Amino acid sequence: MAVIVQKFGGTSVSHLGPIRRVARRVKAELDAGNEVAVVVSAMAGVTDQLVGWVRDMAPGGSAAEHDVVVSSGEQVTSGLVALALQQMGVEARSWMGWQLPVRTSASHMRARIHEIDTGEIKQSMAAGGVPVVAGFQGLSPDGRVTTVGRGGSDTLAVALAAALGAERCDLYSDVTGVFTADPWIVNNARKLDKITCEEMLELASLGAKVLDPRAVRLALRHRVPIQVLSSFADLPGTLVEGTIITDVWGMQLEDDEKQNVVTGIAYSRDDAKITVVRVPDKPGVAADILAPLSVAEIKIDMIVQNVSHNGQATDITFTIAREDAGRALEALRKLQGKLEFEEVLSDSEVAKVSVIGVGMQSHAGVAQTMFSALAENDINIQVISTSEIKISVLIDERHTELAVRALHAAYRLDE
Amino acid sequence: MAVIVQKFGGTSVSHLGPIRRVARRVKAELDAGNEVAVVVSAMAGVTDQLVGWVRDMAPGGSAAEHDVVVSSGEQVTSGLVALALQQMGVEARSWMGWQLPVRTSASHMRARIHEIDTGEIKQSMAAGGVPVVAGFQGLSPDGRVTTVGRGGSDTLAVALAAALGAERCDLYSDVTGVFTADPWIVNNARKLDKITCEEMLELASLGAKVLDPRAVRLALRHRVPIQVLSSFADLPGTLVEGTIITDVWGMQLEDDEKQNVVTGIAYSRDDAKITVVRVPDKPGVAADILAPLSVAEIKIDMIVQNVSHNGQATDITFTIAREDAGRALEALRKLQGKLEFEEVLSDSEVAKVSVIGVGMQSHAGVAQTMFSALAENDINIQVISTSEIKISVLIDERHTELAVRALHAAYRLDE
Repeated sequence: MAVIVQKFGGTSVSHLGPIRRVARRVKAELDAGNEVAVVVSAMAGVTDQLVGWVRDMAPGGSAAEHDVVVSSGEQVTSGLVALALQQMGVEARSWMGWQLPVRTSASHMRARIHEIDTGEIKQSMAAGGVPVVAGFQGLSPDGRVTTVGRGGSDTLAVALAAALGAERCDLYSDVTGVFTADPWIVNNARKLDKITCEEMLELASLGAKVLDPRAVRLALRHRVPIQVLSSFADLPGTLVEGTIITDVWGMQLEDDEKQNVVTGIAYSRDDAKITVVRVPDKPGVAADILAPLSVAEIKIDMIVQNVSHNGQATDITFTIAREDAGRALEALRKLQGKLEFEEVLSDSEVAKVSVIGVGMQSHAGVAQTMFSALAENDINIQVISTSEIKISVLIDERHTELAVRALHAAYRLDE
Repeated sequence: MAVIVQKFGGTSVSHLGPIRRVARRVKAELDAGNEVAVVVSAMAGVTDQLVGWVRDMAPGGSAAEHDVVVSSGEQVTSGLVALALQQMGVEARSWMGWQLPVRTSASHMRARIHEIDTGEIKQSMAAGGVPVVAGFQGLSPDGRVTTVGRGGSDTLAVALAAALGAERCDLYSDVTGVFTADPWIVNNARKLDKITCEEMLELASLGAKVLDPRAVRLALRHRVPIQVLSSFADLPGTLVEGTIITDVWGMQLEDDEKQNVVTGIAYSRDDAKITVVRVPDKPGVAADILAPLSVAEIKIDMIVQNVSHNGQATDITFTIAREDAGRALEALRKLQGKLEFEEVLSDSEVAKVSVIGVGMQSHAGVAQTMFSALAENDINIQVISTSEIKISVLIDERHTELAVRALHAAYRLDE
């Protein structure tokens, strides 16, 4: 008997009707002879409303109270889904983060999951019961409610799947799978049947909003296969298959021949570019500049140090989350005297466009194809960053769609 | 340094603006040198929405899941009030029922409060901190969320005041105090400065919606003075005083002279009248009829057994909560063969009108005044029930306002 974890996102549980549909899908998995645990998000729109209230009440206020208010959304959904399942004769009950508990770090609003105690729910699952776990929330070491950050319900589902030794973690959302590029931008984007965790990780990190990168990283570490699929497709039996995300070893064995050099194109408009102008060019200066950002817990993404102007001063450019730009400027300006730079500039009208593929490392010319395609469309590259399986460029935000379409065509991803 | 518990109802915390006002009121009490604990209800309308969802999803579904969904409303408010207080420089934090914990029975939707652990919050209050406790909710012996029933936040506030040895429990709502009758019905109804717990208990039980009767009972038992006052009046300093509800002993000592015979008039339209027609008139028959209702946990209020028809059969009439009428009829009809009654009738178009006063027991003629006033207005009395400090009558619902006005005038309560 296989254990399956099913996670349902906000649009799958937007009203009572969709929640009943979710219950039928859980029931279908039970009827197929599986043990099922369910993780649910807040009803669509609820989290935004709660976050809005917290911001309006106390901008920059206590993260602990933010978590108390915002986690209530998942509590409501878990109760309603349990009720819907009970109506269908399924032994279901809701579980809050503090009840299991889902033990997390004390970092409110972005807590890390340390451990999920599955003792009690394992017993009930073995007897045909279905635990309906409130996503997004956990319990801090001092007994307070934490949340694991936006998209954290995916991570919680994968962590639960790992803790339960699940065969698969199905993530239901409003997308039917993972595509070669955003189908809203590229008409002939193709749905992928399979993708490796590594590629998905890059896609997710680089802005494909299908899945939280932390969830993919966790799946990779615990070797839990994830399936991304739509909760709006018909019920199992006629279910349109989603995209299976599995680890690279298992996949390469069977699919090596068919492996694409480039699997997909991702983009993100969530970044800001910060340039520190004319920093004295001496050892350790980059570290000195990044230290205050690290203290402020601002995550730095791409980073480039230009060639020195006449050997004395250099420019350092990096990208961070757009929402952190204000704090970053503030932290840096405080240190202007000490670090002796000329000025610090910020540009939020940038987009990061990336090509991803595990086959990339063994093929020359992937970068060349990318840069040529962009040049042909008069798109200027501001910053470049590469890893073994992706190449990212920062461009003017206005050219995002053009760049994504040009790259999709250049790598012939529609074929 | 006095300990004050302040409880704020749904309309006091309906939006962010009123919540800020609540915070200012808490701050004012702190600034006056008191230690303060706060209990909050859900934002106005939220509980109704959540209850609606639960009913639509699973009518008659699991009470445990009902509590999970519905208790989320108080969670949100407690976080927002804590944030508002923090903005004003007050060390505040939210406390859920499971965190303190507020230990209750396992009866979901109407749990009884067994014990409130105040160890942690006492410490923080002594240091100037303000615990903001989510009302309405507690923790069952098996670790699940319970709720204490509608109006239960009042009870929770009084229980917390008792546990903290508070000097006073201030219940802020949208009324400015306790009146001699419903001011919406009787134009010249007077606000009472003081009322005894016993009278308030009758008033509350008999339909004056100011206060949950359980709260008054608890206040009486622990001798915690309650103050009912409006959160819409101005801030302390210019605060319009509410009504102090205190125990009868303390009050009679100072106020015996001024004691009114009748303190107020209450009414309720929440009852249904059930008549079991032509039951064999033999010992124990009333008990036999009420037994199945007791099993179904239906609370019986007024009860009357008519004079026997020719010594063989009698009618038994009683009142119950209107929402229980369907279940009561069902339970009784199942026993029709065994109990040999002719039929069972139900009437929901009834109102209970009551006059209350601790002075009543020492004055003859109170009942006579009541019955005459109703007769003069052609209002037929269906059932009568009395206690030491109240007389209640059941009448046709259409005459409710007329009866309340007539009685208010007959006892000269406007003077």
